[in-house]
Amino acid sequence: MSENIFFKKKGPFELKKLFKGNNSFDQNLSIQDFKILQNANKKDLTFFDSIRYKQHALSTKASCCITTEGLKQYLPNSCVKIVVKNVLFETAKILSNFYPTADLDYLDKNLKSVKSAKYSKVKFGNNVLIGKNVKLGQNTVVGSHTIIESNVTVGKNCLIGSQIMIKNSLIGNNVVIQDGSKIGLIGFGFIPLKGKNLRFPHVGKVILKDNVEIGAGCTIDRGSLDDTVVGENTFLDNQVHMAHNVKIGKNCMIAGQVGFAGSSVIGDNVSIGGQAGVSGHLKVGNNVRIGGGSGVVDDIPDNSIVMGYPAVPLKKFLKEKKS
Amino acid sequence: MSENIFFKKKGPFELKKLFKGNNSFDQNLSIQDFKILQNANKKDLTFFDSIRYKQHALSTKASCCITTEGLKQYLPNSCVKIVVKNVLFETAKILSNFYPTADLDYLDKNLKSVKSAKYSKVKFGNNVLIGKNVKLGQNTVVGSHTIIESNVTVGKNCLIGSQIMIKNSLIGNNVVIQDGSKIGLIGFGFIPLKGKNLRFPHVGKVILKDNVEIGAGCTIDRGSLDDTVVGENTFLDNQVHMAHNVKIGKNCMIAGQVGFAGSSVIGDNVSIGGQAGVSGHLKVGNNVRIGGGSGVVDDIPDNSIVMGYPAVPLKKFLKEKKS
Amino acid sequence: MSENIFFKKKGPFELKKLFKGNNSFDQNLSIQDFKILQNANKKDLTFFDSIRYKQHALSTKASCCITTEGLKQYLPNSCVKIVVKNVLFETAKILSNFYPTADLDYLDKNLKSVKSAKYSKVKFGNNVLIGKNVKLGQNTVVGSHTIIESNVTVGKNCLIGSQIMIKNSLIGNNVVIQDGSKIGLIGFGFIPLKGKNLRFPHVGKVILKDNVEIGAGCTIDRGSLDDTVVGENTFLDNQVHMAHNVKIGKNCMIAGQVGFAGSSVIGDNVSIGGQAGVSGHLKVGNNVRIGGGSGVVDDIPDNSIVMGYPAVPLKKFLKEKKS
Repeated sequence: MSENIFFKKKGPFELKKLFKGNNSFDQNLSIQDFKILQNANKKDLTFFDSIRYKQHALSTKASCCITTEGLKQYLPNSCVKIVVKNVLFETAKILSNFYPTADLDYLDKNLKSVKSAKYSKVKFGNNVLIGKNVKLGQNTVVGSHTIIESNVTVGKNCLIGSQIMIKNSLIGNNVVIQDGSKIGLIGFGFIPLKGKNLRFPHVGKVILKDNVEIGAGCTIDRGSLDDTVVGENTFLDNQVHMAHNVKIGKNCMIAGQVGFAGSSVIGDNVSIGGQAGVSGHLKVGNNVRIGGGSGVVDDIPDNSIVMGYPAVPLKKFLKEKKS
Repeated sequence: MSENIFFKKKGPFELKKLFKGNNSFDQNLSIQDFKILQNANKKDLTFFDSIRYKQHALSTKASCCITTEGLKQYLPNSCVKIVVKNVLFETAKILSNFYPTADLDYLDKNLKSVKSAKYSKVKFGNNVLIGKNVKLGQNTVVGSHTIIESNVTVGKNCLIGSQIMIKNSLIGNNVVIQDGSKIGLIGFGFIPLKGKNLRFPHVGKVILKDNVEIGAGCTIDRGSLDDTVVGENTFLDNQVHMAHNVKIGKNCMIAGQVGFAGSSVIGDNVSIGGQAGVSGHLKVGNNVRIGGGSGVVDDIPDNSIVMGYPAVPLKKFLKEKKS
Repeated sequence: MSENIFFKKKGPFELKKLFKGNNSFDQNLSIQDFKILQNANKKDLTFFDSIRYKQHALSTKASCCITTEGLKQYLPNSCVKIVVKNVLFETAKILSNFYPTADLDYLDKNLKSVKSAKYSKVKFGNNVLIGKNVKLGQNTVVGSHTIIESNVTVGKNCLIGSQIMIKNSLIGNNVVIQDGSKIGLIGFGFIPLKGKNLRFPHVGKVILKDNVEIGAGCTIDRGSLDDTVVGENTFLDNQVHMAHNVKIGKNCMIAGQVGFAGSSVIGDNVSIGGQAGVSGHLKVGNNVRIGGGSGVVDDIPDNSIVMGYPAVPLKKFLKEKKS
């Protein structure tokens, strides 16, 4: 991840200014950016709040990391540990310093009625609104009443339907998006505080790879610090919800009204039946089949067929139903 | 509830004109309005059709009430009982006399392209349509292709996204509504009649209190005789459906694709996981946690954690899954 | 089914040109059209891929049929059998010859801002877009930002809300469609091929009969070779998803967030609770009641009450929950 094209970054900030009053670490450090464990480089700050991400912690290149007393042992010696009680709370606060406009979906003031002249090889419906620096590949079509906000890239031969919203997204070639879907909005991430929740800035984006199809009425939230990704040739049916940071692999088939909670990673060649749900922070392997209406609450190994609520291997599900 | 600002009320009507041919009660009464048990005053008509609402019946101030033979005993002596076979059918018919335009969402003929002059402290996207007498607080932002129908009030510092519909609603300060949501539409209430169902007029509204957040693609129906309410600092994720009269308390967290059937009341500090459903006319206490995918079909006491379909206490759910 | 008014048909084609290299049948046949078993006439091609449709196969009038070695025995002697490995794959390919523009929802270039003059007895909101040859009955109302694509027919006294998309649909009288619904889009049908799925052309339409109500945020896909149908006086609540070819009978009540997978047939007087799902290719009888949250995976006989995941008769469900 190089420069963030959707959210202006501030900084660098001195560590001692970010964490005023915290004397438990060496403060003579200038911090360039805030990134996830595996993307952070030298001079970046990161966070580490769950043992699930131990492998990434062990090899992070970040100069410093917000974490807990219990987890700090997994971070490299070279990484300054900033031990706090509530990692996500501190992360949200500090992240706002770097990206002060990523905590809400502010109005795109650069939206304009499309001027076909500017996109001579693109076809538009009526009342299409396009932001600044939007790239649209040749032979792409954009339907009526659709809005594409600033800095979005759409590849060649795409069919973007009507009444759609796209923001903070990079879209490949030959992608189809059906009417009414909302792509790239801020996700459902906040620190619950009575009276006034603290919103977690969402500086990530949505990436739809080549040949993806998104059905009608879907919502695909952008990532918080990471990205939300749909792999090549994966098709989503109508009314599917993908929360922030979810990654779906290649050649998957996701039926109607399926929901993905945040940060789960789905493999390649996965098929998911209608109305199934996948909890957050899970790993679903390759070639997995999930029955309609299932509720997935655990990781699923490659080549499994699961069903039920909570989802279990199909044989077990059928056996239980018989008994 | 004082004057109804969204639906013009007719009347007063004489009781004998409303119930022609029914001689079982004293007809010399002039009826001002039709309200629910707990909101009705002297000269108002009300209805009482379920033992669930016995407490409200016992203390209603209504002058008369449509009810059944079995329930009439719970109404005060001073209240004229109008005993019928099908309370909702009679209520729908009589209510239409008072509110003849609340049985469908008729066209708002006063919608106009916004003139920023009129709202000098509000920022608008493109192609925003605003009705008559709409109040928009300072620093509020309204995104492109959004429609706000007549008489809606939106508070200060609100962020109303794009492609949204708001009607029959009172919205507080610092409220966020994400793209594509539909707020204040008529609910799913009708008396099934073969060939032509009778629609139940919806004269209630939607109230979103301060600091509420509504995700993308949500539908929040207005109340029928009561209101639909989201309490302060409660956040809803994407594709949530709230049916008519549902009331959610303060500081709640409602994940994606959750659905609420009509008239349920949810307490404060409640969290509900993705795709869970709550049946109609239930009471969910304070500090309750409902697992993702659960189906709630009974009242839930304060401080409970429930899961499953139907939802049971978490310990019971886990025990059953093990056996 | 006479002429297809939504998709231009090509042909006739000689059978030998459609199936080059296949010498297993008499190729001297000119094919007019591609239809489902029960609608095909002489000179039409059809397909037969599941024993479920044996009755239709036995009596089809089609001149030739794409099928499998195992199923061909059920077709009339007069019908030329074209035996293939993957019936749907061959069907999709051949169907594209007849209907080359039905594999995607291409831009309707004939959309224009409505000119009220043309529809003197129809009321419009703002920014309504209407295609070519759209018929709108008297006293029908179309809300703001709604799009009705070419060749759609809407009957009398209909109330079409705002921000709606309607394409490839025939809509009866007194129909209500609430804000944001998407009607008549291409369904989720394709042959999974690694790297580039093959889309199944959708040449069917959506038929909404008289007195139907569709809630807000619904998606009703058009049929693939057949039609998607909602029967008279059937009401759908918000966020319901109907996949291609689903047929719902008369006087049904479908609560919020219900989903129907492809090609299921629902009888008359059926009520379905919120968030229930019905799998594909099922038959649900008349007067059936399906509990909220249920997952229907088998046919259901008339007059049943079912609940659960998978759905079973209510008595069985309650007994299992007790034990």
